[in-house]
Amino acid sequence: MAPLMPRYALLIEYHGAPFSGWQRQSHQPSVQGAVEAALDRLGPHPGIMAAGRTDAGVHASGQVAHVDLERDWDPFRLSEALNAHLRPHPVAVLRAARVPDSFHARFSAIERRYTFRLVARRAPLALEAGLAWQVRHTLDVEAMRAGAAHLVGHHDFTTFRSTICQAKSPVKTLDEIRIETLAIPEGVEFRFHLRARSFLHNQVRSIVGTLERVGAGAWAPERVAAALAARDRAACGPVSPPQGLFLTHVRYPEAPFPDQTA
Amino acid sequence: MAPLMPRYALLIEYHGAPFSGWQRQSHQPSVQGAVEAALDRLGPHPGIMAAGRTDAGVHASGQVAHVDLERDWDPFRLSEALNAHLRPHPVAVLRAARVPDSFHARFSAIERRYTFRLVARRAPLALEAGLAWQVRHTLDVEAMRAGAAHLVGHHDFTTFRSTICQAKSPVKTLDEIRIETLAIPEGVEFRFHLRARSFLHNQVRSIVGTLERVGAGAWAPERVAAALAARDRAACGPVSPPQGLFLTHVRYPEAPFPDQTA
Repeated sequence: MAPLMPRYALLIEYHGAPFSGWQRQSHQPSVQGAVEAALDRLGPHPGIMAAGRTDAGVHASGQVAHVDLERDWDPFRLSEALNAHLRPHPVAVLRAARVPDSFHARFSAIERRYTFRLVARRAPLALEAGLAWQVRHTLDVEAMRAGAAHLVGHHDFTTFRSTICQAKSPVKTLDEIRIETLAIPEGVEFRFHLRARSFLHNQVRSIVGTLERVGAGAWAPERVAAALAARDRAACGPVSPPQGLFLTHVRYPEAPFPDQTA
Repeated sequence: MAPLMPRYALLIEYHGAPFSGWQRQSHQPSVQGAVEAALDRLGPHPGIMAAGRTDAGVHASGQVAHVDLERDWDPFRLSEALNAHLRPHPVAVLRAARVPDSFHARFSAIERRYTFRLVARRAPLALEAGLAWQVRHTLDVEAMRAGAAHLVGHHDFTTFRSTICQAKSPVKTLDEIRIETLAIPEGVEFRFHLRARSFLHNQVRSIVGTLERVGAGAWAPERVAAALAARDRAACGPVSPPQGLFLTHVRYPEAPFPDQTA
C-alpha cells in the first residue's frame, strides 16, 4: 500500500500583474506555476488546487490552496521554505497548516470574499498604481448601493458572467455587496466587498463595471434590475479591469487557519 | 519693469523608488527634475521650491511646492497639463492653486506631517512591497509608545539627525508621535504619525528605527530618553529604510488648497 501523503493548506497572497492568472498554463507565468515550482524544490507532489482560479492581473490577499507532500513538514518551516523558493515572485505563503485528507481547497469552501478597489479622482495614482481601478469622474455611492441591492440574493446571473464561464448553472446566491468609501488625497476610494458561496467567471468585475456606470449617472439604478432579469450577457455594463480585484478570504466548515486575521 | 509672474502652489504625490530624492541632481533622476521637466513644456519658469526635501526612496502623498509661471493658468488646467507631461513617472499633481507672491512652499510652512509604515510579519509583502518597511518579528506597541513619549516636545535632537544635516540648530519641537496599529493578513502594521513645524535630516527614520528596537525588546523604552539626552549621533538606533516613509501633509497659515482631504 502506498504511504499516505500528508495534506497541507496554504494561505497565499500575490500581486496579479506579472501573471496570466492562478491557473498553470504552458508558456505563460501563472501563480500556480510559481507555487508548484517552489514545491518542486521540496520533493514530489501531485500538484496544487486553489479555492479561486483568479484571472490575469487579479490579486489575492487570502487565496487558499492545498497540496499533498511526501514528508511530514512542520507547517511554519514549510511556509518559510516555500517563501525562500518563491523569491523574487510577488507571491507569499502567509501560512501553512496540516489538514485532513478530506479537505479540498476548492470543493470544501463554503464562502468566498472579494474586494474591488475603485478610485475616483482626476490625478493619476502615483502610489497605488496597479492596486486599484481609477476613473476620473465622481461617483454617486448611494446610486451604486441602490443598483447593487438588486443583485443581492438568489438569481440567474447569466448577464453577469463571461461567455466562456464553465459553471454548470448561472444561478448563484450573492450574499452581500457592501460599498465602503474612504477619503484619499483629492479623491474618493470605493471598496466593493462581495460575499458568496461561489462566483461565476468574471462575475465580480461584471458587477463592479456595471455599478460604476450607475455611479457615473450613465445608468439608472433600476437598469441593473432590468439587466439581471434579461439573463443576457449583452445587457451587462462594461467589465471592469482586473487590477482593482482582490480575493480576500475563503471560508470552510472548519477553519484551516484558526486564528486567521484576514 | 519686468511683468509680475503669477505664483502657483502644487500639491504633489509621488512614489520615491525611482528617484534619488526630491532635490534636483545632475545625472540622477529626481522628483524636482521630473516636475521641472513637465513645467519646461509649459514655458519659462525660475524653478520649483518644495516644502520637504525628501530623501531617496521616500514617498509623498502631500508634498507642496511653488513655482512662478509666465502666463495665467486656470489651476485645474495647469494640473492636467502637468500630469500629461509627467507620464510615465510615478509623480502626480493632485491640485494646483494660485497663491500670493508672499507664499513660499518651504518658508511659509508651519507644520509638516509624516507617516511611517512598519509591517511586522514573517511572510514577504507581495502586495505592499516598496510601500512599507518590513520586519519579521513581533513588536510591542506599548513599549514603542513609551519610548516615543520621551521624544515629544522641545529637545536637542542631535542624536536623531544625520551627520550631514545642514540645519543651523538641532533643537526642534516634535508635536506628536502617534502609533496606529492595523491588522493585516498574518501580521500587524504599525503607522507612526509624526507632526512638527519642521524636521531635521533623517529625523523621522532615525526615530522609527530606534523605536523599532524598543518594540523588538532590544531596547528598554527608557534608553530612548538616555539616547536623546546624550546629544550624540552614536547613541541613535539604526536608521530605518526609506520605503516606509511618506510626507503626507504640509500646513500653512492660510491653506493654499482650502478643502484638501489629505
